[in-house]
Amino acid sequence: MQVNLAIDAMGGDLGPRTNIAGVLLALLQDPLLSVTLVGKQQLVKTLLLQHHLSRKLADRIHLLACNDQIGMHEAPASVLRHRQDSSMHLAIKLVAQGQCQGVVSGGNTGALMLISRHYLGMLPGIKRPAISTAIPTYKGQSYLLDLGANIDCQPENLLQFALMGSVMVSRVEGKARPRVALLNIGQEAIKGNSLVKAAANLISQHPCLNYVGYIEGNKIFSGDVDLVVCDGFTGNVALKTSEGLAGYLSGQIQTLFHKNWYSRLVGLMAQPLLHQLKQQMDPVRYNGGSFLGLQGCVVKSHGNADAQGFSFAIARAATEARQGLAECLQTAMQKLYLPYETN
Amino acid sequence: MQVNLAIDAMGGDLGPRTNIAGVLLALLQDPLLSVTLVGKQQLVKTLLLQHHLSRKLADRIHLLACNDQIGMHEAPASVLRHRQDSSMHLAIKLVAQGQCQGVVSGGNTGALMLISRHYLGMLPGIKRPAISTAIPTYKGQSYLLDLGANIDCQPENLLQFALMGSVMVSRVEGKARPRVALLNIGQEAIKGNSLVKAAANLISQHPCLNYVGYIEGNKIFSGDVDLVVCDGFTGNVALKTSEGLAGYLSGQIQTLFHKNWYSRLVGLMAQPLLHQLKQQMDPVRYNGGSFLGLQGCVVKSHGNADAQGFSFAIARAATEARQGLAECLQTAMQKLYLPYETN
Repeated sequence: MQVNLAIDAMGGDLGPRTNIAGVLLALLQDPLLSVTLVGKQQLVKTLLLQHHLSRKLADRIHLLACNDQIGMHEAPASVLRHRQDSSMHLAIKLVAQGQCQGVVSGGNTGALMLISRHYLGMLPGIKRPAISTAIPTYKGQSYLLDLGANIDCQPENLLQFALMGSVMVSRVEGKARPRVALLNIGQEAIKGNSLVKAAANLISQHPCLNYVGYIEGNKIFSGDVDLVVCDGFTGNVALKTSEGLAGYLSGQIQTLFHKNWYSRLVGLMAQPLLHQLKQQMDPVRYNGGSFLGLQGCVVKSHGNADAQGFSFAIARAATEARQGLAECLQTAMQKLYLPYETN
Repeated sequence: MQVNLAIDAMGGDLGPRTNIAGVLLALLQDPLLSVTLVGKQQLVKTLLLQHHLSRKLADRIHLLACNDQIGMHEAPASVLRHRQDSSMHLAIKLVAQGQCQGVVSGGNTGALMLISRHYLGMLPGIKRPAISTAIPTYKGQSYLLDLGANIDCQPENLLQFALMGSVMVSRVEGKARPRVALLNIGQEAIKGNSLVKAAANLISQHPCLNYVGYIEGNKIFSGDVDLVVCDGFTGNVALKTSEGLAGYLSGQIQTLFHKNWYSRLVGLMAQPLLHQLKQQMDPVRYNGGSFLGLQGCVVKSHGNADAQGFSFAIARAATEARQGLAECLQTAMQKLYLPYETN
């Protein structure tokens, strides 16, 4: 199925060059994908020219010029109001106007969230999008949410995350009754903070959820559950700690294989294996973070993602757009409509 | 300096055989260490005999017989009252009576905490011990606390963790002004949940602390700070997630080096390097968790630790006992005495 995505070409720590390389990787992988690059015209054109694109590939790339870009550390509320000619604004508007089926950006997360909310609107009962990402496990992918959008959560927020995440996993992964777990510090019912205990009470009683109980941090990568639910503070710490550890261990491996002549020799022979390992050791940069709860498809690529990482985020958005995830969530949330308002 | 430690020989998932192997490793590493093994007499004697100990080594091992042991999942409050002939009770009592300078157990964490509190007592102003562990970083060891003893924390608890942790790092690592950071989801002052923001306010104003600001999960292993402070829920999730990821990646490496004949050959050549790596990839089992805030030295070994892991926990306790950490904390807390009571 054809899909056209809006790409914020200017976002991310590594900038347009990396983003455009990522876009081309994604286009090569997915023949039914086309993109609208939103960026500074001259710069984007120059970068595209460097790739000597075939006519066929070039035809799948459209360009929308902007005059501004939002910095990684600017205050979201200010850029929402004052930077309406930025690549991020224009890219999201393309989705709001129905010209694109989804948007991908590696830029400022807070700004992306606020601008998306402004142009796309939220689902009934949801005040802020939750961020979810796929994580690698022994048995394929699991999902984790929230990753930092909702910091001081109420039990009702965690219930909403469980509901939205559950719809997402069943839609995107084709799993009929995704197994939902709450991240906690023990598996016994008496363990945990007051938020988790109250959320467990709500989630376990909801008829639409296949709640399997608490999960501890050391089991996140087990693949025993399909969805791990937690507040945004905890999820952010868990994900970033994993990122930090993966980086640390990757560094240790490098050092190990450069210690002496023997280890260098083995390291040389192991090069292709180590390359595969390096990719596996960077789980957090895969796929991008999906914003759930918006009336539209928005995927945030890791600010620090390389071209391949960015292409994963694009592929993620293409899948969600094709599966009609946002519409599906909208129907589900209207049906389930929660009678309380949350923060 | 001579030191005698009480060892709960019966605790831990892997049981007395592993604990005793760990004790022997620790004794071989540390010629001035002696231990009192608390365990079922016949069992411990049989296990010791299997090691064919030299007279000299055997002289450094004392035995205190018990008739009971506490299971890993028993309710702490019940075992405190009803299981006073257990190895854990008797081992902690040896410290309370001054016969040993510290105790190490791989058993039930909640029970160890409650029984330690009961026999040893708390420092002024502290209601529950905080658990701290060393974590490997690019630049040597850092420390993380709390790891799960204090779940629903107030800002004052985090201040206490910062104070106790700071005293510990300066005493044990010999660092004059340990750099203290608060674990958060961003480095900017506006980021974070209400607990972290209020704690930052308290910690940054305290004259005895060298507070350097917020730290994100991906920087925990950077070594840029000496002490990372967080509530017990967050710390437990961060540590266990690291443990889970390390295990997952270790498994990936195994699989990678067994894929085909080439990778098997390289794997064979890389065996010594992979062995080193395996040790480095298991950071969370090092050292054991120190209980801070008690009037005595108590170190909890990871329930799942192997003999080498258990020997690290013993070495940790020996260091803390030699440095007089508990007394040092007592003096510091009396001097700093906090005028409020905490939960």
